[in-house]
Amino acid sequence: MDAGLEAMLIEQGKKAKKAARFLATASTELKNKALFKMAESLEAYEEEILAGNSRDLEEGRKAGLSSAMLERLTLNPSRIKAMADGLREIALLPDPVGEVLEMVRRPNGLDIGRIRTPIGVIGIIYESRPNVTADAAGLCLKSGNAILLRGGEEAINSNRAIAKAIAQAAMSCGIPEGAIQLVDSTDREAALYMMKMHEYIDVLIPRGGKGLKKAVQENAMVPVIMTGMGNCHVYIDEFADMEKAVRIAFNAKVQRPSVCNACETLLVHERIAPQFLPLIAEKYREAGVEMRGCARTRAIIGGIKEATEADWEEEYLDLIIAIKVVSSLEEAIEHINTYGTGHSEAIVTENYTHSRLFMVAVDAAAVYTNASTRFTDGGVFGFGAEMGISTQKLHARGPMGLRELTTVKFIIYGDGQVRE
Amino acid sequence: MDAGLEAMLIEQGKKAKKAARFLATASTELKNKALFKMAESLEAYEEEILAGNSRDLEEGRKAGLSSAMLERLTLNPSRIKAMADGLREIALLPDPVGEVLEMVRRPNGLDIGRIRTPIGVIGIIYESRPNVTADAAGLCLKSGNAILLRGGEEAINSNRAIAKAIAQAAMSCGIPEGAIQLVDSTDREAALYMMKMHEYIDVLIPRGGKGLKKAVQENAMVPVIMTGMGNCHVYIDEFADMEKAVRIAFNAKVQRPSVCNACETLLVHERIAPQFLPLIAEKYREAGVEMRGCARTRAIIGGIKEATEADWEEEYLDLIIAIKVVSSLEEAIEHINTYGTGHSEAIVTENYTHSRLFMVAVDAAAVYTNASTRFTDGGVFGFGAEMGISTQKLHARGPMGLRELTTVKFIIYGDGQVRE
Repeated sequence: MDAGLEAMLIEQGKKAKKAARFLATASTELKNKALFKMAESLEAYEEEILAGNSRDLEEGRKAGLSSAMLERLTLNPSRIKAMADGLREIALLPDPVGEVLEMVRRPNGLDIGRIRTPIGVIGIIYESRPNVTADAAGLCLKSGNAILLRGGEEAINSNRAIAKAIAQAAMSCGIPEGAIQLVDSTDREAALYMMKMHEYIDVLIPRGGKGLKKAVQENAMVPVIMTGMGNCHVYIDEFADMEKAVRIAFNAKVQRPSVCNACETLLVHERIAPQFLPLIAEKYREAGVEMRGCARTRAIIGGIKEATEADWEEEYLDLIIAIKVVSSLEEAIEHINTYGTGHSEAIVTENYTHSRLFMVAVDAAAVYTNASTRFTDGGVFGFGAEMGISTQKLHARGPMGLRELTTVKFIIYGDGQVRE
Repeated sequence: MDAGLEAMLIEQGKKAKKAARFLATASTELKNKALFKMAESLEAYEEEILAGNSRDLEEGRKAGLSSAMLERLTLNPSRIKAMADGLREIALLPDPVGEVLEMVRRPNGLDIGRIRTPIGVIGIIYESRPNVTADAAGLCLKSGNAILLRGGEEAINSNRAIAKAIAQAAMSCGIPEGAIQLVDSTDREAALYMMKMHEYIDVLIPRGGKGLKKAVQENAMVPVIMTGMGNCHVYIDEFADMEKAVRIAFNAKVQRPSVCNACETLLVHERIAPQFLPLIAEKYREAGVEMRGCARTRAIIGGIKEATEADWEEEYLDLIIAIKVVSSLEEAIEHINTYGTGHSEAIVTENYTHSRLFMVAVDAAAVYTNASTRFTDGGVFGFGAEMGISTQKLHARGPMGLRELTTVKFIIYGDGQVRE
């Protein structure tokens, strides 16, 4: 790779590491002061941020970005205000650092406990929505971590303006320069190099699609928390309440189809299918949802496409749903554990034992009985804000708030004890 | 790589994944029954295990293994009894699976909680000591995980006999075949392939030296928990109690120098050095410890080697210690955070503020005031047994017991809630 780019990244890594040591012992008071100042600064830099955003939108239009992409990229005064308010909310959340999780006195008189500490340097690779720049920086600062932000090419001018506004504000409060840094390169090599910076980055959080996931799996030498792959299912059990079933299956697909906690495949027990499928099909048709069904589904709902193996694997993120009739709860669980991405999975049932088995046997970050998968979200779960939704099993699973951006260490207090 | 080996590993991975789904809902009763049966079986297979061990020792001698290596490799009836008792102890520990960590009712009436669940399939790559085979299998079974065991070439015959004894016993209780599997290949390619089996292995735990760490960093596509790198320090503060200082500095180096929580570098504040260094030097000399000092150390203790940059980085695992005189607590912390591997670090001091700063600012799995680093151990910490000592920050840090072999998932109970 380009030697200049490598030198820049190493320099940023060193600065971040140094800043992380400062942040490890920074007071909550200082961090909160910086967060409020950063919020103020975002509002003060509104003009500059909107100018950067206009350039991004213009180039995006030239590059033929979809209208959905352009919508996600778009900033306006109220979105900037929302970013600023997000930082203020983070300031008001309790500081996770320093919490002692437990402490016990061992027989030899040692007091042994575990205390929450920052992780160190966090790298994030993300796309399109520029508000992630402010959210991620705020969450990392509050949890005592330095951050290296690597946003997408399509948002580079917006991200530059946002990062400048917040980093300067933080520095004006005494936070070191290395604490919040934009990796100012849209070169793909920069993202690949970040994946290998194990001397400088303690954890890398990729937020993106399959391509990014694959690149990370193949290249990362840094510990990684994968986020946001969501092939989610709703299973309508034979003992489902019909009204709840229709409501949840509809909401999980239609309310916001472009997000990772939306439902992609509907599984329906064969005993309830003849009654349920025509009801939901009518609602889906009204909402413009394209249905793709297995043979048994198509025997009940006419005029829909056939679902293939590829459909069970697909994360549509669109008004499309795959539908499969299953013969048992066990078949539904097996299907979910085979094709699911471990994000959010729901059963609709009035049967106690079926709920209990589903909740235990389904292997996912969030499992629901009688509620829409759409609730998997840091805000809804009460974390205030989130750094992404982890779909891996190590360290953090599901929405990642401030707590998930910390690690723990053992603290041991003695009176001169030695080991015999 | 060899197609037969690849096919074998994929087959084992598939079996493990299937077994993991069974174990996810297995009762504590069943798992404990299997653990007691496995213990019994180890004792019943004593002759076969010792025969395998004899072959390993013979080949080890031919291959010129060091006497320390041969000693670690050696089994005898009392060591087999200890392995069996280890499994019985694991059976008596509480089952971590199913514990609900917290559950809250959100304003919309959803009950949202987190529950401990098994991780799934755990791979472990380890060396020499064959008791790890039984310990790791027992811990994984109790925590509801399937395990793929890849021991070292030098212990292959011992491991085969141990794995056969415990896997058969577990199967006789109804645990599926895939739950405990030895990767029966000493080919390095087998270990490398395991690092890439992300479809089958949920987490890989390498236990070994720098070479293994490097191979994992460069090759792993599976999430990894690094263990056991221990460049540990004892810092003698200017306000140390002299008697405690000598006792702890001596114990941390000498009591068992070959293990990862032994002290490798002693840092001494300049104000206490003239008094402290002659005392500890005399004790180290008596115990046959080779000292390597900085210039200021050598001005106080005569006749010792000069410590170079390489010494600050070295994990000797032997009766050798590097000694450095520092001008301040801050210099000691900086040295530790620069050269330490994040394992175990101790300060000896009577000063409240110095203890407090050291405990917060030192970035390691275990930080001590006035106790020997040698205590970092699952047994000592009250976990019963350990899968290794994690020196990374994600997921688990320090000794890994049953709890660290679990993940959590969110469980959400509703009454038909949908997102507005």
